Amino acid sequence: MTERFALNLTPPYYAVIFPNQRSGKDEAHYAAAGELLAELAQDMPGYLGLESTRDEAGFGITISYWETEEAIKNWKAHADHLAAQEKGKSDWYAHYELRVAKVERAYSGPQGR
Amino acid sequence: MTERFALNLTPPYYAVIFPNQRSGKDEAHYAAAGELLAELAQDMPGYLGLESTRDEAGFGITISYWETEEAIKNWKAHADHLAAQEKGKSDWYAHYELRVAKVERAYSGPQGR
Repeated sequence: MTERFALNLTPPYYAVIFPNQRSGKDEAHYAAAGELLAELAQDMPGYLGLESTRDEAGFGITISYWETEEAIKNWKAHADHLAAQEKGKSDWYAHYELRVAKVERAYSGPQGR
Repeated sequence: MTERFALNLTPPYYAVIFPNQRSGKDEAHYAAAGELLAELAQDMPGYLGLESTRDEAGFGITISYWETEEAIKNWKAHADHLAAQEKGKSDWYAHYELRVAKVERAYSGPQGR
């Protein structure tokens, strides 16, 4: 029941918050690229975890967690990720926001109180 | 196409990140409470916006944005919100994480580059 959560992270750490609205275009490539990028991110230094969901209207939120700002910059500059960022701008997203945040405190529930 | 985004926020500001897995229990009350709380939050001092989505498996992410930590504490202590927090622990969620983060920088796309 907890496999979709990033668990046991100890603040402070960083979150890249990515709310996004899919355009509906290019679904097969989008899904494949998403899976590949999630796997690649796991091998990056400083990667801590990922949480992601999307509703039937195509509105999604993905959050990746990182140890440092430097780790985020390295991931942003990864070649496969750069290619995906371009496809995101040209085809995949009708709109997105990207917010880099420092997580200062955190709790779990309902068991983990 | 952008109505589900919190737009035009200027860092620094705060994000309350709430990834959660619904238990599947009490759906009617849960939906009604969610709508009420979203309306109440809008009237709280320091409220900046909300982004929320959930997939068919009941895994959701809700993020609320606030001007200050003080605004977050006031909202956490709101009576109707406290009642909802108790229902969340007892009935609504199989698991959740709650992370308070300071947004340090942000971008929009693909138009807003």
